[in-house]
Amino acid sequence: MTRVDKEIAAAVGATGKALARALFTPGAVALVGASADEKKNTARPLRFMRKHGYKGRILPVNAGRTEVMGLPAYPSVEALPEAIDHAFVMVPGAHVAEALAQSAARGARVVTVFSDGFAELGEAGMAAQQALADQARQLGVRLLGPNSIGVVDVHSGAILSVNAVLEMDELRPGAVSVVSQSGSMLGALLSRGAARGMGFAKLVSVGNEADVGVGELVDLLVDDDATQVILLFLETIRDAAVLGPALRRARAAGKPVLVYKLGRSAQGEALAQSHTGALAGNDAAVDAFLRKHGAMRVEMLETLFEAAPLASRHARSVPALDRAPRVAVVTTTGGGAATVVDRLGLAGVDAVPPPDAFVAHMAARGVKIRQTPIIDLTLAATSAQYRDLVEQMLQSDWCDAVLCVAGSSAQFHPQLAIKPIVEASAIGGKPLLAFLAPEATQSLQVLQSAGVPAFRTPESCADALSCLFRAARGAQAADADDADAGVPPLAWPEGLPTHGDLSELEAGAVFAALGVPIAPAALVSPPSLGHAVPYPVVAKICSRDILHKTEIGGVQVGVRDNAELAAVAERLMANARQEAPDARIDGILVQRMEDRLLELMLGYRHDPLVGPMVMLSAGGITAELHRDVSLRPAPVSPAEARQMIDEVRSTRLVRGFRGLPRGDVDALADAIVRFSRLAAVQGPTVAEAEINPLFVRASGVVGVDCVLRLADPQH
Amino acid sequence: MTRVDKEIAAAVGATGKALARALFTPGAVALVGASADEKKNTARPLRFMRKHGYKGRILPVNAGRTEVMGLPAYPSVEALPEAIDHAFVMVPGAHVAEALAQSAARGARVVTVFSDGFAELGEAGMAAQQALADQARQLGVRLLGPNSIGVVDVHSGAILSVNAVLEMDELRPGAVSVVSQSGSMLGALLSRGAARGMGFAKLVSVGNEADVGVGELVDLLVDDDATQVILLFLETIRDAAVLGPALRRARAAGKPVLVYKLGRSAQGEALAQSHTGALAGNDAAVDAFLRKHGAMRVEMLETLFEAAPLASRHARSVPALDRAPRVAVVTTTGGGAATVVDRLGLAGVDAVPPPDAFVAHMAARGVKIRQTPIIDLTLAATSAQYRDLVEQMLQSDWCDAVLCVAGSSAQFHPQLAIKPIVEASAIGGKPLLAFLAPEATQSLQVLQSAGVPAFRTPESCADALSCLFRAARGAQAADADDADAGVPPLAWPEGLPTHGDLSELEAGAVFAALGVPIAPAALVSPPSLGHAVPYPVVAKICSRDILHKTEIGGVQVGVRDNAELAAVAERLMANARQEAPDARIDGILVQRMEDRLLELMLGYRHDPLVGPMVMLSAGGITAELHRDVSLRPAPVSPAEARQMIDEVRSTRLVRGFRGLPRGDVDALADAIVRFSRLAAVQGPTVAEAEINPLFVRASGVVGVDCVLRLADPQH
Repeated sequence: MTRVDKEIAAAVGATGKALARALFTPGAVALVGASADEKKNTARPLRFMRKHGYKGRILPVNAGRTEVMGLPAYPSVEALPEAIDHAFVMVPGAHVAEALAQSAARGARVVTVFSDGFAELGEAGMAAQQALADQARQLGVRLLGPNSIGVVDVHSGAILSVNAVLEMDELRPGAVSVVSQSGSMLGALLSRGAARGMGFAKLVSVGNEADVGVGELVDLLVDDDATQVILLFLETIRDAAVLGPALRRARAAGKPVLVYKLGRSAQGEALAQSHTGALAGNDAAVDAFLRKHGAMRVEMLETLFEAAPLASRHARSVPALDRAPRVAVVTTTGGGAATVVDRLGLAGVDAVPPPDAFVAHMAARGVKIRQTPIIDLTLAATSAQYRDLVEQMLQSDWCDAVLCVAGSSAQFHPQLAIKPIVEASAIGGKPLLAFLAPEATQSLQVLQSAGVPAFRTPESCADALSCLFRAARGAQAADADDADAGVPPLAWPEGLPTHGDLSELEAGAVFAALGVPIAPAALVSPPSLGHAVPYPVVAKICSRDILHKTEIGGVQVGVRDNAELAAVAERLMANARQEAPDARIDGILVQRMEDRLLELMLGYRHDPLVGPMVMLSAGGITAELHRDVSLRPAPVSPAEARQMIDEVRSTRLVRGFRGLPRGDVDALADAIVRFSRLAAVQGPTVAEAEINPLFVRASGVVGVDCVLRLADPQH
Repeated sequence: MTRVDKEIAAAVGATGKALARALFTPGAVALVGASADEKKNTARPLRFMRKHGYKGRILPVNAGRTEVMGLPAYPSVEALPEAIDHAFVMVPGAHVAEALAQSAARGARVVTVFSDGFAELGEAGMAAQQALADQARQLGVRLLGPNSIGVVDVHSGAILSVNAVLEMDELRPGAVSVVSQSGSMLGALLSRGAARGMGFAKLVSVGNEADVGVGELVDLLVDDDATQVILLFLETIRDAAVLGPALRRARAAGKPVLVYKLGRSAQGEALAQSHTGALAGNDAAVDAFLRKHGAMRVEMLETLFEAAPLASRHARSVPALDRAPRVAVVTTTGGGAATVVDRLGLAGVDAVPPPDAFVAHMAARGVKIRQTPIIDLTLAATSAQYRDLVEQMLQSDWCDAVLCVAGSSAQFHPQLAIKPIVEASAIGGKPLLAFLAPEATQSLQVLQSAGVPAFRTPESCADALSCLFRAARGAQAADADDADAGVPPLAWPEGLPTHGDLSELEAGAVFAALGVPIAPAALVSPPSLGHAVPYPVVAKICSRDILHKTEIGGVQVGVRDNAELAAVAERLMANARQEAPDARIDGILVQRMEDRLLELMLGYRHDPLVGPMVMLSAGGITAELHRDVSLRPAPVSPAEARQMIDEVRSTRLVRGFRGLPRGDVDALADAIVRFSRLAAVQGPTVAEAEINPLFVRASGVVGVDCVLRLADPQH
């Protein structure tokens, strides 16, 4: 944890416990707008709490009745006969403010607002929501919602929620907590998990997040003894500054956070925005943000809960590998195992054959196996042999995880297919997981209750295993940041502007101050052309007002001597005066011509959701045409910079591809690290910056065009 | 259907009926190696047939017993008291040949061999398998397997299989047939489908396909009245020449073929090879082959059966669209619908908002909807309104399909969530499908029995819908082939070699004969250098024995006049003599220098699994680095050539990208079509060919380097 993280953690700790108590385990709750009509949504919370054994006091508020389902009802919150900890507000939007004020007056620390009609409706609703949040702050009460389907504590039966899924007869308590930006998906996840025998701790629908957001909830759950793993269903991120440190705390506490986030496709992203009224962020940036902070972002919906036992058991101990993770696969169905292995291949996880020594070791124990990436025990083995094989694998050093794939036996003879897996799992150690090829609900439940991660589809199984290792690697690379005790702040160089666009020379000076190599250059003011840059040179018009120099005829490469420079300078100045008559021209930038093995682009920008990002991409149009780009939250550690280089396919051209000459990858990584420290600039805020192109050479790298835009101080 | 397809169809028809009868609905079956020990695999077929109501005669063969489970048993097939139609052989591999011979003698038309120990074991096994196949051919009996888990006719209860899944109490008859290269996955698919209420017709495990293969089985199933949709679980393709026409017959008959094939990843492909002893093919080639022949290749395992009702209802009628398919989405769970829409976006399917006119139309019918890509009916609508909305959508012209996503109501109140969908489905017309966000097995079964395609995961739902439209488009483009009444055969040009490598000049002559524009060139023999090619030219060494000219210093670009050519020619000849002393040199190829907007590569090769393929890719290393490649079986139609161009991202550079000049895409498509006719060459067989680079210009295209390798006539 950084110092800032620790401060936040301490502050959260102080107020968090009281909030968590009121939110999850209130002693007395008001149900504002509780109906006596069983068919109505608003009748549900009371019914649910009775059904699932809530022991606290329930106080229905109903303007038209003195009794609701056998309990005394009150005309207003004000009229309640005792203080409350938590109010659940189900009245129409216009009456929410009043309920909020009265709830605060009656002692509530938190008010959950189910009522809709706020930010999800657009601008007018946004204003109403802001007013509600302001009111809550003034009252000193915390607000969950509006447009929240509620909050559930499974262990105590405190169900301040109208979610239909809670009609289920048995609500199994467990260690999995869920925070969701979609109320209905909270129910979908609960029902799917429950059908597999999974137990839950807390379930929270955050609604529009006017006050309490996903980040703060993660923080509360880190401190919740009942919670061992946290699942997030996200449509957007509204509180990255809180969520990032909360994810790190979760990681430090050994409570993995699994995330399903909409927006892999542009269509899904646009939808999440319109649906939530959220800002447009870049899904790739969010992805990098989640990885940096150690969250496991899954690809498939079912992986979100299916991977929970895997993450819960192993997220803390699984190593960060510099190579592809290796999985040993043992099965009674070759085809079934192959469906997982094929997907694992797409995700960069290797199925490995056992080495000679292990084959011999097992032979000595009476188990004959072949040296294939899938070890098929179909006909040969007894249940005891199966168990022994898995146990030996779990204790071996040639694989990072063991996957068991069961065939038809899982459906009809769990004792054959499932028992050895369950028994072997007692060994502990590396991850052990199971995929069941046939429909085998009962076997899935047996595995679940034994704590063995089990998967219904090959895709989800592969998704979970690859996410586990990827998260370990992503988080470890980011941890290096903490290890180097923070990035030194960069004082803004004297004499440079503190807002607006910088000229190329000025931008280059900022990057050079960070330690990024920039091509040597001098500014000359025609007709005076004296400079010390060796020929040949590039001559460029230099102006804060001209960002696209080439398009106005403001660049000439290959200038060979002073005489040519004089002619070129005159032409460039003339072009600039004609094409950009209002631009303030600083002069002509004379820059050394640089050679290179490869052109890349290094960029920096503020993602509206998750903040400063650094981007490495292929140069020219390759980045756009082939999406050859890697992103990370800035600043980055050297290990992250290395990962970024690996992720940009074009860099293979300087990493030994087909015998081509190698470029200076160390220098490239160093340049990325230094450039990313734009995030640590003191004084003005860098809104956007770019070195394009950045040349990679056999020795060193050098930037040959620089752009930097400062944020408007008003914003 | 082409003429050849028709001939094959007629031939199959003649012998197919008798084979189908013996294979699926035999009147008398021998169970060779049937055990009386209930615990053994080999006891299963008899038990299964009794359990599932087989009415024919069962004749157990067991060397050690006179009775098996109450039936008289016989010491050998020879000793059977009556003729049989089909023998199921479960004896050890060494005794299979004898059982085969005796079965043929007792009248069997088909022998299914469960026994293993053949090709799956490597070379020795391969020889034993070939001997078995040869023996069967000589005996005039057909062979299914070896290493087949058997064949099942659900309708008659003829179960010649040891698959454990058949222990299930009720085997529901239906219209879905499955052919699988993995025996155990046959069971997995059956159990998963059955759990959803899906009924099956025929199930076949093909084992090692020594004789009867997947293609022939598809053909038999096209003629099977009980089968309406065919599912294939494939690890490889062994009989492309039979499978291709069979897939086309299935398409013509309106029986969709859904395919799950392993090998999307290199790891999965390698595995399938080693597992099946199959040749290494290119998964992308197989993918293109399946698309050309109208099969729907799904990505997720569960899609294979979940998409069956969708394909069965709509594969025939869904239009081949030149644009992204548009789906109208209606839901009671915004988050749940978004999970599907996000995946649809990745697959190129658009969720479309309703147009003004439709919103007004529905308002006039009393249903208020918003103009959003997901129409959320959470609070507003009654069941009748939901139904009306879906019905109106099904009859509208602004969408190609309608997707209903149900929330918690699907779990507890099917009448609300499911009934309107089922009722609306009676309207027919465009595809209507459903995804259920919560665990809702019962609702899935209700939808299944009503014939409404329903999906358990958002990923499978999106997979199915995108596959449906993609298959329609792929098949239609390929159909154009048939429309142009076949490709005219190309007579091999006089005077060219008929085996081995051709020189560049010769290769160019072949391509030119096909009508592909090749840069004008002349062959000169130093010291005589007379030619009519306009300067500047490229000079290249010309030899059948030198394929890599550049690497031996055999190419010079930018030769400006006769004098320079003389010097260059001398140098090139000297280089060739030194670097390739044994090469027969034809002379110096003098070729016009060509300009271009873009360099591409056009290739041709024989895929070992699916035969001749044409490949268009980015030029240089971009193809490899960014996998910018498109493949199709050769020859291709103009529509397929257009699709290939669209699939190679680099071609965007000449299709209006960022205002760059446009290239002659028509000429490019024409060149691809003509080049692909290498597959129709008469005489020698082209093994491999390449135009690299192929220049795309503002007007026309031109090939500037040509390679062609003929197949060795011995092979």
